[in-house]
Amino acid sequence: MRLRNVKNKEEIMKNSKYLIEEPELNKGNWKKAFNNNNDIEIEIGTGKGKFIIDKALKNPNINYIGIEKYDSVIARALEKIPEGLENLKMVRMNAIDIDKVFNREVKKIYLNFSDPWPKKRHSSRRLTSEVFLKKYDSIFVDSKVICQKTDNESLFEYSIISMSMYGYTLKEISLDLHKSEIENESTTEYEDKFVKKGQRIFYLKSEK
Amino acid sequence: MRLRNVKNKEEIMKNSKYLIEEPELNKGNWKKAFNNNNDIEIEIGTGKGKFIIDKALKNPNINYIGIEKYDSVIARALEKIPEGLENLKMVRMNAIDIDKVFNREVKKIYLNFSDPWPKKRHSSRRLTSEVFLKKYDSIFVDSKVICQKTDNESLFEYSIISMSMYGYTLKEISLDLHKSEIENESTTEYEDKFVKKGQRIFYLKSEK
Repeated sequence: MRLRNVKNKEEIMKNSKYLIEEPELNKGNWKKAFNNNNDIEIEIGTGKGKFIIDKALKNPNINYIGIEKYDSVIARALEKIPEGLENLKMVRMNAIDIDKVFNREVKKIYLNFSDPWPKKRHSSRRLTSEVFLKKYDSIFVDSKVICQKTDNESLFEYSIISMSMYGYTLKEISLDLHKSEIENESTTEYEDKFVKKGQRIFYLKSEK
Repeated sequence: MRLRNVKNKEEIMKNSKYLIEEPELNKGNWKKAFNNNNDIEIEIGTGKGKFIIDKALKNPNINYIGIEKYDSVIARALEKIPEGLENLKMVRMNAIDIDKVFNREVKKIYLNFSDPWPKKRHSSRRLTSEVFLKKYDSIFVDSKVICQKTDNESLFEYSIISMSMYGYTLKEISLDLHKSEIENESTTEYEDKFVKKGQRIFYLKSEK
């Protein structure tokens, strides 16, 4: 994610009804925040929000939460959310705190174009490392479903091995998502750019 | 595998001391055939034999069995085996009969550039389909290890899902084996050609 400072980010964040300012207060009670019992799906590293907004628009009976750590980025996403999208909330936080914010209430996690952390000594920071998989265990409601898209071959290889060794079963895979028969309902800003340039998108759906 | 008829194939096969003519007679007793208690590793679809001969030369303390269904192809392989390679045997058979030939005595299976059977209705013929994985269950001695190399993206995707869903854990993977850090001791004829042309080799090691 290229970071451009958004000057009025504090104002945007303060005024948005989509941003949950103290997400840990909702831990165990997210259904209340949405005022219904629908499933909750989250995107960790939601960037400028294209994917999660599109998902929310297309699936009004699923609740979505977009998680993003940078103020300037989430401000951009907040600006783009259309009026009255009741099934979407946004949270500004670091993914490492995910287990402080959810307790057995997430149905599905989306990881789209996550930071690959290419250096081996940083591998535990990858969102599919054992460190994170352990945290995810406590946030999932029952079955654990992770959908990952990436353009990064090394992160893709790493994720396959890491999730398989952690006990996940690989259910769907594509080494070239946009040429496959796999349904790809919503795309991210990055994804659109990569596909335009002819680059391949790797896709993986895992379940535990 | 392009099939060129080898005119004197019957003669080559009859005269080779490496070919086991009635392999089912060795079922449960392959260690006797090798006259030692070393581990046994097999390659299903051994082609012209480059890989398995090289493995046998490099690892004298492991026993190898190359399995190939075509007379003309196995004849070529038999011609290439150097004198006195005591840790290598060859078997001409169809892989579908694998469980008639081994009983809890194989340590590792190599699947190199197997027929991808691209049509969906033929998918059960792929050597990583459930049909074959079930058969492999009864031939492995204890832990089950399958090493696969292929240039075929669809077969690779299929194998990952099929093995994971059958209970295998993926231990090593590469989407470009010859550019990876993974050890690749021996290559096949196909592999050498593909790599020369700049094509990528997919690699997977699974364990159950």
